[in-house]
Amino acid sequence: MTSPRRVVVVGADAAGMSAAHQALRTAARRGEALAITALESSDHTSYSACGIPYWMAGDVGSGDDLVARTADQHRDAGIDLRLGTTVVAADLAGRTVTTSAGEVLGYDDLVVATGAPAVVPDWALRADGTSYDGVGVVKTLDDGAAWVRSFTRVGPGAHVVVVGAGYIGVEVAEAALEQGFGVTVLTRTRGMGMLEDEMSDLVNTGLVDAGVELVLGAEVTGLELDGDRVTGVHWEGGSREADLVVVAVGVRPATDFLAGSGLEMADNGALRPDPHGRVADHVWAAGDCCEVRRRIDDQWVFRPLGTHAAKHGRALGDSLGGGDLSFDGMVDTSITRFSACGVHLEIARTGLSRADAETAGFDPVALVTEGTTAAGYMPEAEPIAIWVMADRTTRRLLGVQVVGGHGAGKRIDTAAAVLWAEGSVDDLAWMDLSYAPPFSTTWEVLQIAARRVAERL
Amino acid sequence: MTSPRRVVVVGADAAGMSAAHQALRTAARRGEALAITALESSDHTSYSACGIPYWMAGDVGSGDDLVARTADQHRDAGIDLRLGTTVVAADLAGRTVTTSAGEVLGYDDLVVATGAPAVVPDWALRADGTSYDGVGVVKTLDDGAAWVRSFTRVGPGAHVVVVGAGYIGVEVAEAALEQGFGVTVLTRTRGMGMLEDEMSDLVNTGLVDAGVELVLGAEVTGLELDGDRVTGVHWEGGSREADLVVVAVGVRPATDFLAGSGLEMADNGALRPDPHGRVADHVWAAGDCCEVRRRIDDQWVFRPLGTHAAKHGRALGDSLGGGDLSFDGMVDTSITRFSACGVHLEIARTGLSRADAETAGFDPVALVTEGTTAAGYMPEAEPIAIWVMADRTTRRLLGVQVVGGHGAGKRIDTAAAVLWAEGSVDDLAWMDLSYAPPFSTTWEVLQIAARRVAERL
Repeated sequence: MTSPRRVVVVGADAAGMSAAHQALRTAARRGEALAITALESSDHTSYSACGIPYWMAGDVGSGDDLVARTADQHRDAGIDLRLGTTVVAADLAGRTVTTSAGEVLGYDDLVVATGAPAVVPDWALRADGTSYDGVGVVKTLDDGAAWVRSFTRVGPGAHVVVVGAGYIGVEVAEAALEQGFGVTVLTRTRGMGMLEDEMSDLVNTGLVDAGVELVLGAEVTGLELDGDRVTGVHWEGGSREADLVVVAVGVRPATDFLAGSGLEMADNGALRPDPHGRVADHVWAAGDCCEVRRRIDDQWVFRPLGTHAAKHGRALGDSLGGGDLSFDGMVDTSITRFSACGVHLEIARTGLSRADAETAGFDPVALVTEGTTAAGYMPEAEPIAIWVMADRTTRRLLGVQVVGGHGAGKRIDTAAAVLWAEGSVDDLAWMDLSYAPPFSTTWEVLQIAARRVAERL
Repeated sequence: MTSPRRVVVVGADAAGMSAAHQALRTAARRGEALAITALESSDHTSYSACGIPYWMAGDVGSGDDLVARTADQHRDAGIDLRLGTTVVAADLAGRTVTTSAGEVLGYDDLVVATGAPAVVPDWALRADGTSYDGVGVVKTLDDGAAWVRSFTRVGPGAHVVVVGAGYIGVEVAEAALEQGFGVTVLTRTRGMGMLEDEMSDLVNTGLVDAGVELVLGAEVTGLELDGDRVTGVHWEGGSREADLVVVAVGVRPATDFLAGSGLEMADNGALRPDPHGRVADHVWAAGDCCEVRRRIDDQWVFRPLGTHAAKHGRALGDSLGGGDLSFDGMVDTSITRFSACGVHLEIARTGLSRADAETAGFDPVALVTEGTTAAGYMPEAEPIAIWVMADRTTRRLLGVQVVGGHGAGKRIDTAAAVLWAEGSVDDLAWMDLSYAPPFSTTWEVLQIAARRVAERL
């Protein structure tokens, strides 16, 4: 009798634990038992990092609400879960990992699901590498708890500076406004860099309408401090008093422990697993520590999103367990909202940017179309703007972006489905989408937008 | 110099006028002028019949709000529009139509866009063919105006009986509840017959929760009258006092004037135009007087919906004008909502029913999946139920139905896009749909529903 295959999972959040559970299920169907050990450096497993801004906003009552599966639930499924355990080295030839406590664990299969911690710029850090009081990132449940405490401490009327105007920056701005704070958003470049200029302008306008002080092109140079506590932020050309400073300038894959392993990595350290999650013999990876394959132009891109982590983790787990599910890439879909002080904007994108399309050799034609989310005579009707881009030669749909009121955002899924199928802008314009007055105009606005581009090809 | 082509359009609502304007535009691009005469039996053009229930509900202030293009706007575009003009006969060989006033008009091209008036059962009619007082259908702007007057006359607390529980029946029930009336809905069979039983049950429950008296299997046998005014309704096994009786039992194509013309017609009189709108040499048709081609099983079906009318009308107009736009069928998508008295249900379907699928020779596997419209911890999360059906052999997606809270309904468009592309249930399960906590669970519920079916094939 052989002993069960030893699987070591490094990182016990969405991708890792999704993989672990799926591997157990698939292997069990084949009559195989797996001995899975999951090593997690924090004290938390399987939580929704995406929900933290809404916890900060007061929409979610407690950090516990964000936990999808507790440590006990993982252990009940037979996983040997070890919290507070950081892996510092891996020997892929010898098939071992070493923890910060010096323990060496052997494995038959290694799953790397270490995620991507938030980047903290030097100006936010003390000499010992910790953040100043009142300064921090929004990434872990501990971060969330710290912000909820800080929000209570400073009280309504305090001023929050958010550094970064990507998804997290915008969501935190919403949270801070909802809590009654003054809000400044600083961004090094422009707002919502994942949108085309004309669409990000709409978001900028919404932020300002809601009372946000938005400073574009602001390179932060340092903090104003009272002892260890932040009291202000300086940037080239300006400054602002601040009770709290939220840093939301991106994340970076946690793959330092694999340095020198010979695994292919992107410049930022991201791994590049195949559709089954394999990065090398007996080594697998999924989630925010990886890049994902964008189907439209067949490029690797870094998109640390929960939806990719969950899908890739599941495919990895199934393959590890002996199945053949695969994660066949993505089309670069994402969504958020900005909803505060009477402004409600749903913000979504899918496909390529104009720059991506030109790099890939397409001949892109793009237009913004304005319309309404419902028949104009209905009280539900809210403005929506849709950017549609297609290739002049092949008429292939290349990208769609949406900014608008209630019901605008999820329209992106329809465009994503067309991109997934490599459909044309004519498919989008003429396909059979639903119509009733509370839900759309007779020609759905997404189809009007597609038709206008189709007419210009 | 030749005189311009004479085009006679019979019916000046969505399909006909969409066709007329597009024909003018396309012909003008080719340097051709058209002499278009549009004959409309009513006094109204190009209005949203779909909006009438919301006018009755008080969501829309005036019937004028429902008019997309006025008679003057059509005339300004150069169309010779004649209101109050009914066509009673057509001579396709001689290329003439005859009006009820006895006028004979010659044409080079004839466009039939006569729509589909509401069916009125015998029990609702006086001997002279008019309806009793307090009894009527919901189809034209005049119907809408009459109901708005009747609602004012009877006042809050009155009782409205709605006969029929299809889209219009459910929408009128919403309107009547919103106006403070007691509401009974009678249906000969079950509620929302376009849904599978398990989905229509959810709608039935919502109607009852909102205070509707819902009677399934009720075959109306007659009215109770006080003089010419209705005071009650009888059906086999029951009766109910009623101040108003709304009849919403379907519509029938207005093609009697083409009887004996030799054109192919469905049993109900519907025409069957090709993708360019042609039904015969120099004869075109679009809109509610036509059946439409369902791509999935290549069947003609009668789906008198504004979205098909607008698309087919545009393709017809372009083809008539010398272009080549085509309406390449539909996938049987439709949507409505029931929103009253604290209940909000969005109701949508696309693709085949189980019965359709079996008739077409598929081997359907279907499941209902329950989930939430947003991450469970968000205040936006509302219940949603999704029915997904796929073919066991080919894994092709065959149909999806949705009943749920805010944001549920428009999810149908994503499924419709997959059906349009003849995608599989695996495509739906694994494609890159948007995720953020206010908009969906990490695995979008539509994808969970697809995955569950995929696992059972």
